[in-house]
Amino acid sequence: MQEMHRVLVVMCGIQPATKLLVGVSGGPDSLCLLDGFVRLGYAVVAAHYNHRLRPEADADARHVQRVAEQMGVTFISAASDVRGYASEAGMSVEEAARTVRYRFLFAEARHLGCAAVAVGHTADDQVETVLMHFLRGAGLSGLRGMLPCGVMPEWDDAIPLVRPLLGVWRKDVIAYCKEHALEPVFDKSNLDTTYFRNRLRHELIPTLQDYNPQVKEVLWRMSQSAAGDYDLLHRLTLSAWHDCQIDEGLDFVVMSLNALRRMERGLKRNVMRLAIGKLRPGLRDIDFQSIERAASFIDAPTQTHFLDLIAGLVFYISGDRLFLGDHSSSLLVSAWPQMDVGDEFELAVPGRLELHAGWVLESHRIESAGYADPDLKEKDPFQVRLNASCLSLPLQVRTRRPGDRFRPLGMNGHSLKLSDFWINEHLPRPARPGWPLVCSNDEIVWIPGYRPAETCRLHQGTHRAVHLILKRTSS
Amino acid sequence: MQEMHRVLVVMCGIQPATKLLVGVSGGPDSLCLLDGFVRLGYAVVAAHYNHRLRPEADADARHVQRVAEQMGVTFISAASDVRGYASEAGMSVEEAARTVRYRFLFAEARHLGCAAVAVGHTADDQVETVLMHFLRGAGLSGLRGMLPCGVMPEWDDAIPLVRPLLGVWRKDVIAYCKEHALEPVFDKSNLDTTYFRNRLRHELIPTLQDYNPQVKEVLWRMSQSAAGDYDLLHRLTLSAWHDCQIDEGLDFVVMSLNALRRMERGLKRNVMRLAIGKLRPGLRDIDFQSIERAASFIDAPTQTHFLDLIAGLVFYISGDRLFLGDHSSSLLVSAWPQMDVGDEFELAVPGRLELHAGWVLESHRIESAGYADPDLKEKDPFQVRLNASCLSLPLQVRTRRPGDRFRPLGMNGHSLKLSDFWINEHLPRPARPGWPLVCSNDEIVWIPGYRPAETCRLHQGTHRAVHLILKRTSS
Repeated sequence: MQEMHRVLVVMCGIQPATKLLVGVSGGPDSLCLLDGFVRLGYAVVAAHYNHRLRPEADADARHVQRVAEQMGVTFISAASDVRGYASEAGMSVEEAARTVRYRFLFAEARHLGCAAVAVGHTADDQVETVLMHFLRGAGLSGLRGMLPCGVMPEWDDAIPLVRPLLGVWRKDVIAYCKEHALEPVFDKSNLDTTYFRNRLRHELIPTLQDYNPQVKEVLWRMSQSAAGDYDLLHRLTLSAWHDCQIDEGLDFVVMSLNALRRMERGLKRNVMRLAIGKLRPGLRDIDFQSIERAASFIDAPTQTHFLDLIAGLVFYISGDRLFLGDHSSSLLVSAWPQMDVGDEFELAVPGRLELHAGWVLESHRIESAGYADPDLKEKDPFQVRLNASCLSLPLQVRTRRPGDRFRPLGMNGHSLKLSDFWINEHLPRPARPGWPLVCSNDEIVWIPGYRPAETCRLHQGTHRAVHLILKRTSS
Repeated sequence: MQEMHRVLVVMCGIQPATKLLVGVSGGPDSLCLLDGFVRLGYAVVAAHYNHRLRPEADADARHVQRVAEQMGVTFISAASDVRGYASEAGMSVEEAARTVRYRFLFAEARHLGCAAVAVGHTADDQVETVLMHFLRGAGLSGLRGMLPCGVMPEWDDAIPLVRPLLGVWRKDVIAYCKEHALEPVFDKSNLDTTYFRNRLRHELIPTLQDYNPQVKEVLWRMSQSAAGDYDLLHRLTLSAWHDCQIDEGLDFVVMSLNALRRMERGLKRNVMRLAIGKLRPGLRDIDFQSIERAASFIDAPTQTHFLDLIAGLVFYISGDRLFLGDHSSSLLVSAWPQMDVGDEFELAVPGRLELHAGWVLESHRIESAGYADPDLKEKDPFQVRLNASCLSLPLQVRTRRPGDRFRPLGMNGHSLKLSDFWINEHLPRPARPGWPLVCSNDEIVWIPGYRPAETCRLHQGTHRAVHLILKRTSS
């Protein structure tokens, strides 16, 4: 009771007499919670959701109603065919049940003007949650487990979800029910170990107790410690975000590359998580490897300055600016050299060709004796020198065609399918159809931003070369 | 090989040709490590420690010597009776073996002028370490697992311990040994599941893989993520420490209470861990509950402003200053009201008595009609009003005697042993013998800083009272 009071008043700032909606399944946790609220003097509404998953479901709903009425508490309920909803929405039954239940609880809370929705998760539930997150490799955010109070934007932007029993063990809840003659319903599905959570509860946690009998207490405290550390890191991350953020739209963010590069690796990772979270708020876990790829890209961008990141998001660098956005973001598309799909132009040498969005392709002749083979990888991937003796002029500039193949400089043997080359180089998919290809006799001799063809290699003693430059003159 | 190079050169800044000492047990990990070092061009010394725990130990030592000689590497070794050392030092055999081995490795590294000591821990070892720390509830620091390079003050202040294989899985190490015809010794004790680590390896990790087949990869990445987050938090904590730190000695630190109070709970916890770590560098795990008690004490100190913390450390508040130090720290002792043990003085009313270190006890008469019972807990525990009609003057002020009993205000029924009262109130043990007790007719009527006796309670209508004040006038 003291613990409930501490969570509600001290942590959540919810004073007695406030109107609250309490989710009541009828199990010991939620009955204990409801009883505690009544004794602490809150104005509670007991809300029961009947998932109709078990034969006893209707009887359970009537039982909860009786208990609520005996306590003098307003009772509301709803029911639906969760199994049907699950198969419609392509969710697991657990997930579907959770979704319809919380949707109901928050809709009613809004309707009835409640200050919060309360649910009966206990310290045991918390330990199971921490363990679940641990097993799938969550970071600090996941190791916090559930929060005692917090707004969940997926359910409501303002009404918080509170969990006053998160510091109370299930055994104490059960003892409380006995002591106060509360009669919980018995949900047999809690014993069904085909549910992941039940396997943790009934199998894994007992196993872990063989290794450390205190493991539940230990994991509960870890969640507290992780929550404190997370809050600190989050503050640090927000401040770093403000230091590096330049622009933000619905489907893109722009950050300062130099500001990002000055950050430690850990901070860089957290800022990347934050930035990705802004564009993909629904993404539950951003996997560590994607974050690592992002951090590595910032320190040492690929030649083309593009990276296909995660969940349809791409990185693009231009000067000090790092763009992160949707594949289809207009900001990104205009940042790439693009032509209309199917277009083909001639390019004389010397010559000049204008592409979209201010990109210009220039060609020059180079006449000089004893020209040595440059590094295989040119420093600027948007410039190249090709051996003129292998070219037939004028060159053609066109977009891809079915069957295109390419043998990049430095690759011995056979040529690659162009599509395979692009997959290897991680060119974002939407940039591929309009990407300019420089050809001679219909053979690709240069992919701007990537590689020249092996056939156009400069040799010791190459005298005549063609110098091609693709650059952006304006936006 | 690339991974070894990355750890050594990029992460640890150790260039090829540097002289290194490599700990070689003869198992696949250390042979692979040794071979890798030779191929990367480091000047290595192979160091083997023979723990004489198994019948094959001497043969294994000879085998490692042969392998080293075949590679053209200097070989050194030592041996001792680890079991004997363990029972002498009161350690487990595992712990003793670890201690003598690392002591040997670092002594030889110093002697031979090596830039680092290298050991062959693999990604599998890392996962086991993370899991071990998880099971005992470590915070971020523990979830990092082992570090790829770091100075361990317990072994040497300057020579780092490096672990170039921490990102390499054991299966790849074994494949490497096969490919390079390296013949590891077989340590049967690795199968002995009476060792905790072996139980994790052979029993718990396979169980966890039933829950997530990727659990090893996931825990390895968690260690990376935790290491980055830890570095960030550590920087934040150091900066907070500098903001609140006032003074620091060998056996004490002094912090600003107000600066600490302004910190978030998570930061406060980390600063407490740092401060405790300064006074108890050997303390491996500072348990979460002690840290929580410390944080709570800072926000709401106990009436006496003392707290018995952990490992012989106590907190003491004086004004804005929070002292943390040894029980026996001179700074702390002078901060307490103390008398010479066995001293006894008379205190007239009105009167005044000087104790040690500037503490003064004053008495005054209060004559006023209709004086109501104050709160049971006075606001300042170093002041009290006693019912004069129950006192026989002059009062006595003395230190404790065997058999002393006390019935604190508000306690009905029997009196307590004074020693039990002090245990309940957490008065630090070294403060007890010299603590001043105010007596009347040899019965304790007030314990300054704590409680008056029930017998001296003021009643509605009490007219005459004695007002006692204990205060510090100077240091």
